[in-house]
Amino acid sequence: MRGAVIHAPGDVRFETLDDPRILHPTDAIIRTAVTCVCGSDLWPYRGVEAIGDPHPMGHEYVGFVEEVGSEVTSVKPGQFVVGSFATSDNTCANCRNGWQSNCLHREFMSTCQADYVRIPNAQGTLVATDEHPADEFLPGLLAVSDVMGTGWYAALAAEVKPGCTAVVVGDGAVGLCGVIAARELGAERIIAMSRHEPRQNLAREFGATDIVAERGDEGIARVKDLTGGIGADSVLECVGTAEAMQQALQSARPGGNVGFVGVPHEVAIDGQELFFSHVGLRGGPAPVRRYLPDLMDRVLTGRINPGKVFDLTLPLDQVAEGYQAMDERRAIKALLTP
Amino acid sequence: MRGAVIHAPGDVRFETLDDPRILHPTDAIIRTAVTCVCGSDLWPYRGVEAIGDPHPMGHEYVGFVEEVGSEVTSVKPGQFVVGSFATSDNTCANCRNGWQSNCLHREFMSTCQADYVRIPNAQGTLVATDEHPADEFLPGLLAVSDVMGTGWYAALAAEVKPGCTAVVVGDGAVGLCGVIAARELGAERIIAMSRHEPRQNLAREFGATDIVAERGDEGIARVKDLTGGIGADSVLECVGTAEAMQQALQSARPGGNVGFVGVPHEVAIDGQELFFSHVGLRGGPAPVRRYLPDLMDRVLTGRINPGKVFDLTLPLDQVAEGYQAMDERRAIKALLTP
Repeated sequence: MRGAVIHAPGDVRFETLDDPRILHPTDAIIRTAVTCVCGSDLWPYRGVEAIGDPHPMGHEYVGFVEEVGSEVTSVKPGQFVVGSFATSDNTCANCRNGWQSNCLHREFMSTCQADYVRIPNAQGTLVATDEHPADEFLPGLLAVSDVMGTGWYAALAAEVKPGCTAVVVGDGAVGLCGVIAARELGAERIIAMSRHEPRQNLAREFGATDIVAERGDEGIARVKDLTGGIGADSVLECVGTAEAMQQALQSARPGGNVGFVGVPHEVAIDGQELFFSHVGLRGGPAPVRRYLPDLMDRVLTGRINPGKVFDLTLPLDQVAEGYQAMDERRAIKALLTP
Repeated sequence: MRGAVIHAPGDVRFETLDDPRILHPTDAIIRTAVTCVCGSDLWPYRGVEAIGDPHPMGHEYVGFVEEVGSEVTSVKPGQFVVGSFATSDNTCANCRNGWQSNCLHREFMSTCQADYVRIPNAQGTLVATDEHPADEFLPGLLAVSDVMGTGWYAALAAEVKPGCTAVVVGDGAVGLCGVIAARELGAERIIAMSRHEPRQNLAREFGATDIVAERGDEGIARVKDLTGGIGADSVLECVGTAEAMQQALQSARPGGNVGFVGVPHEVAIDGQELFFSHVGLRGGPAPVRRYLPDLMDRVLTGRINPGKVFDLTLPLDQVAEGYQAMDERRAIKALLTP
């Protein structure tokens, strides 16, 4: 089969690879329907994260079950399935507590920009649709496997509730999905921080009521202006830099909540500042599996359309162009079709 | 009148001071019924916090209203009142959100180890009892004004819920009150971390089901042993050091919660560690005012007796001995009677 391999910063190649095989009785093999490039894939692409030896890339996937291991009974060959970037047995103590992305048997997906993918912990990870979805739903279902599930978690971690005011820091695909989540969870006012007009427009389409283009202290001051001087009830941090975390923490009102889903890079939180702010803070890789049935239903009934974050579609063999377009911010998120 | 003044580390003196006066129409003057020394008073006493010029000390108080400013109508001279260490107008946006300890007009109390005390924001700060309480209730009501309210907040910030497992880090008065709070809020298992036998005994009396005497990695390992290998649902951090914060964060299960109420001293939280732990974190000076009516009722009906944390009673003029006894851990908490 063929798949993406990263060799060095800026160097993603489309190569012939060994077909994946069932390695454990809990595995499944799927044929990729669509896959994509994630904002977090840009960390190694930009040289911010070490790459080490060349290795396959990609952790977002929807597809058709090709083969299952002997212990997998919940899905069967031919079915269309959605999974999470973090696999989970869905039976361990952490899974039972709803933290499937902290499953005691978790394996992070990392080979999904390819024709075929091996899914560990398939029984607890994959959720099948009743029938094969129409093509128009594929981008939305793919978004659910990561960015929409992550935006959903950010909103829940930020304790978005009906009538509240929410701020979304970050206008990437996750931030934009965070806007969808905040609206679905009942936020009355949704302030999207973005200075890119196409993303501002999409944020508005997804439910943002206000756009703040300023950053840093000016951005915080604008949020305070919009929130009676005290800050927002809920803030979704969807970037992962120290600047974004400061923006988020200082945009929240006393006793408000920050949900952070950007993988933190050199972020340290001052204990005393956090203390006196009374802000509640929770982050992490989203437990997407917890939300899959609900979010898949919202997509398939047309209630939400997170697939709109894909503003570039490429054949899988042009995956390198997908990385480059996202790196240069020419695209929000690149969809790849095998 | 007479009151405590700190001059330098280890040097607290009992001196003659000017009687407090009404400075603003929102003030009240109370005659102290009982007051006490707080664990946080030991930070300057031990030289960990700068002292600057000599200044009065004390932020915990219950007493009798002597005089009220022209805008104070909620309490009147002669009434017995309980207040919080953080004063609040109880009408601003933060107060309405339940964060009275972040009131836009907040003033922290700092002159309470004295015969008389001026209370700013008296209207929103003071809660009167229906009648003068019997002497036996004074220690409990005094505890409510700070340590019991703070332990209560720690348990709520740690999201203690019926049936959960809670860990309390710190066996000072706040930690011990945190044990009471965890029990009242329905925790099924309460693990108190303490290596001092008298405090272990009081923790058990207050509802602790398990004692862990180990600290650091051994302490964390013991908590994991007691919690099915994954950690506790809720952890109350009641110390304020970097070591205690680590102990707390690592004792919580994935997706669990840490409530931290020890004023952080040189505590930095690593963003990536917090991220991958999925632990929720909230701290701050407790919004005691929010809990006063409920906690006063629990004391006056005999449901809880946090006054037991006072294991040393001294006349106010021996306040210096109170500091010394707590510094040397000969006493958990010193009650002072004017």
